[in-house]
Amino acid sequence: MVAPSLVAFLPPLLPILVAAISPEPTVAAHSHSKPKPFPPLTPLRMQALLRHERGSSSRGGKLVVTAAADGTSSTAANPFTAHYFPQELDHFTFTPNASMLFYQKYLVNDTFWRRPSGGKGAAAGPLFVYTGNEGDIEWFATNTGFMFDIAPKFGALLVFIEHRFYGESTPFGNNADNFSKTLGYLTSTQALADYAILITSLKRNLSAEDAPVVVFGGSYGGSKSFLNHGLKYPHIAIGALASSAPILQFDYITPSNSFYDAISQDYKSESLNCFAVIKATWDVLDERGSSDKGLLELSKLTVKYADSIGGWLEIAFIYTAMVHYPTPANFLENLPAYPVKEMCKIIDGFPANADILEKVFAAASLYYNYTGDQTCNQIEYEDSSHSSVLSDWGWQACTEMIMPMSRSNESMFPPSTFSYDDVSNACLQLNGVPSRPHWITTEYGGHKIDKVLKRFGSNIIFSNGMRDPWSRGGVLKNISSSIVALVTEKGAHHLDLRSETKDDPDWVVEQRRQEVEIIQGWIDQYHQDMA
Amino acid sequence: MVAPSLVAFLPPLLPILVAAISPEPTVAAHSHSKPKPFPPLTPLRMQALLRHERGSSSRGGKLVVTAAADGTSSTAANPFTAHYFPQELDHFTFTPNASMLFYQKYLVNDTFWRRPSGGKGAAAGPLFVYTGNEGDIEWFATNTGFMFDIAPKFGALLVFIEHRFYGESTPFGNNADNFSKTLGYLTSTQALADYAILITSLKRNLSAEDAPVVVFGGSYGGSKSFLNHGLKYPHIAIGALASSAPILQFDYITPSNSFYDAISQDYKSESLNCFAVIKATWDVLDERGSSDKGLLELSKLTVKYADSIGGWLEIAFIYTAMVHYPTPANFLENLPAYPVKEMCKIIDGFPANADILEKVFAAASLYYNYTGDQTCNQIEYEDSSHSSVLSDWGWQACTEMIMPMSRSNESMFPPSTFSYDDVSNACLQLNGVPSRPHWITTEYGGHKIDKVLKRFGSNIIFSNGMRDPWSRGGVLKNISSSIVALVTEKGAHHLDLRSETKDDPDWVVEQRRQEVEIIQGWIDQYHQDMA
Repeated sequence: MVAPSLVAFLPPLLPILVAAISPEPTVAAHSHSKPKPFPPLTPLRMQALLRHERGSSSRGGKLVVTAAADGTSSTAANPFTAHYFPQELDHFTFTPNASMLFYQKYLVNDTFWRRPSGGKGAAAGPLFVYTGNEGDIEWFATNTGFMFDIAPKFGALLVFIEHRFYGESTPFGNNADNFSKTLGYLTSTQALADYAILITSLKRNLSAEDAPVVVFGGSYGGSKSFLNHGLKYPHIAIGALASSAPILQFDYITPSNSFYDAISQDYKSESLNCFAVIKATWDVLDERGSSDKGLLELSKLTVKYADSIGGWLEIAFIYTAMVHYPTPANFLENLPAYPVKEMCKIIDGFPANADILEKVFAAASLYYNYTGDQTCNQIEYEDSSHSSVLSDWGWQACTEMIMPMSRSNESMFPPSTFSYDDVSNACLQLNGVPSRPHWITTEYGGHKIDKVLKRFGSNIIFSNGMRDPWSRGGVLKNISSSIVALVTEKGAHHLDLRSETKDDPDWVVEQRRQEVEIIQGWIDQYHQDMA
Repeated sequence: MVAPSLVAFLPPLLPILVAAISPEPTVAAHSHSKPKPFPPLTPLRMQALLRHERGSSSRGGKLVVTAAADGTSSTAANPFTAHYFPQELDHFTFTPNASMLFYQKYLVNDTFWRRPSGGKGAAAGPLFVYTGNEGDIEWFATNTGFMFDIAPKFGALLVFIEHRFYGESTPFGNNADNFSKTLGYLTSTQALADYAILITSLKRNLSAEDAPVVVFGGSYGGSKSFLNHGLKYPHIAIGALASSAPILQFDYITPSNSFYDAISQDYKSESLNCFAVIKATWDVLDERGSSDKGLLELSKLTVKYADSIGGWLEIAFIYTAMVHYPTPANFLENLPAYPVKEMCKIIDGFPANADILEKVFAAASLYYNYTGDQTCNQIEYEDSSHSSVLSDWGWQACTEMIMPMSRSNESMFPPSTFSYDDVSNACLQLNGVPSRPHWITTEYGGHKIDKVLKRFGSNIIFSNGMRDPWSRGGVLKNISSSIVALVTEKGAHHLDLRSETKDDPDWVVEQRRQEVEIIQGWIDQYHQDMA
């Protein structure tokens, strides 16, 4: 039984809710407590976060959401062996700590691999490598059944590499006394170099230097797979499937309202009433939260503190939109097929004059408690300390992964603006190191990506589902004959990477078929080039 | 008057001779003392270096070659203004020192620039950016007249960026008390990011975001230009002219004997006697150096210490081969046209029975004293200290820029072998940090580059002259329709980047014409794509 830790793609700035949840390997000890992701941090939220941080909140401490959803993964069905690779801490300097080693975890499944035959017989099967995200690698491996499904056809070796500082791949264990001295080494460039070094070493150790490598990734991991093959390390892999990779979510390349507008559209497309009810929620919540009578009423909803209710509801609406899968799934939570539709059915099922908060709480409960095994919506405060307020993703979101996100008046969420200055100032206070808000586009590009990649790079699939709010920051149009966009109108967050099921709609089946066909083309081309 | 500091492309492991020469900006105070480059370090040399380092040499101290060649550059003819850009020390971590700023020097010439017109009239002219090498930037700017020659045709802005830790761009000034704490930040990846950040910022400040950038570089700087546009930062530049860039000199991709074999071939092609005399030199030198009588004879050659003579001679033969230009030039030294031919004429002009050392000393004097303004071949020892034994290039050559180089029995130099272990062990003793001998090919590739780049990347010119020993580590064949190799049989080290002269042979004129035509094609294509 494996405990998933953090979310597939955590939004830009991580507020106290998620920040409080440790993504460290100790989560294995809490396999029934599944940490939750959280929506982008608005300036208002940041203020609240800072209040908590400075201990000036009347309640103080950090916020923890606990849920009793079962953390069981499908490990048994997708067996792999765990390995640990000695990796240097800093690939880009020779400073005194640079050569310190940590152990990077990776999972291997060689059931289907056509091993190198030493020149005799068929060519070795490819390596399909998943470039890990911001969480422990078992979670991603067990939610990327697509690679297991297609491995037999390709005779592929499956490798899933954990991202540094997540899961068990923590250079400093749970010690984070000095953030910049420890988490300072948690950057996207270091992670890309980790992958390049590990893959190169693994191929050598397997005498598989000539086997082609295809990299896969979803969400932040999808960005990684694109960056790995598609941009920075073309000598490591021959192609990349980057699923739901919001590589254009930086530097205002994608309009900052788009993420929340997309979610709002998801709900509106199910029912106008559903959208209107959710949109009306926030004022009601503010109003009740400002009076003792209102607070008393809220307490009946079995939520302990009023000012956390808003965040608790937002999580439910945001993440349900992301995982609006066409079949029942248990990625973030156990959910039925088309969960946004189900949420709206709940809201629309109430009499029009029923209490608005009753409606939205019932809807949110679908997300938190679909299986019905929870008796209370637990939202609690614990004592806060600097070292635990910031999760590892919180660090990334405060240093280089800064995505402008705002909420327009037209969205169903409380409006908010975005300012680099606000975020940078707040992050400097939290981390003690300056943010680099424009670094991602300087290092990796993004502006005019269609022009830049039109004559540069090859063999990339950008896949996106338009029900996923992250799709708006993705590449949605073909860039060249070999850098293609596969877009499904009804798809959600890296749906294509999930295991096939008997209930998959035709459009998912077709999307995966195209992916297999394209990947087969890359491998055929590789062998032709090498012949 | 500008003082050139270090050589265009310093060979792999830098022995004490060059290591002793400070590449720091203080050289400006010694404009008549032009530091010299040095050939690759063999294990024997490394032993000698270590002996000096440990102070166990009977003479102790470091070796300095002083020459009185005039260091005047053609600055007056190629005017530029110097600027200083605040650059972060470490782009790839957020550790406590990462955001420390240093000032990176860059030179600008806007005489010919067609400035952005704000959408009205002609498009802005391109930025032609030279990505600096291991030396102060004035030296490279004044030896890259090609960019000045073609700027008017393109309406180009010329920018020459100094490489971190060289010239005036020294984050720690002359303080190098703790190598890994200071020089630890001197890596090729950091330098590439410096260029990307500076170019991005410069374009923004000039309101020239839409102006195309073409990167130029020679030797190590040529490798940089390839890596910048061609591999890691395609969003920064639209094309790269990488002249004499030995990007395949790593990891035995190029046979380790090739560098010295190429030099030997250069001399042999002039005269078999010339080759034979030089090849016979080393045994004679050893023999005389081992007796007092022999040493006395050597002292008549106005060289103070016998055991440095070998290195002094090797420098002359190696670097004369590199700069075997078809016209008189003053890149490393003031030299006549076709200097290898001239050296061999000197050797061949002696009676056959003349003393062999007289012959080779006379030949070497062509390199050191062509203008005849020196009265003595000065090879002196000075006191040694750890901080000055290793130059900055010595650091790079001992950490990541480790190029296997050996000498076969067929070369005209004393035979030697190469071993990663020997180099790594010696470098660990010197630097206190482990080398990463395979890092360059992991980070940048190189193996099977023709297959990798066939379907990846575009708009690169790899130019090489086959008289240059570094050409053997270059790309000598076209890889794709837009990644092309321009090879001249008679060319030397980045000859194409030098100013045109009235005496240029047709094949140089033709090479440069092709380069201009190709670059024009990139720019035209860019404007079409953007239209």
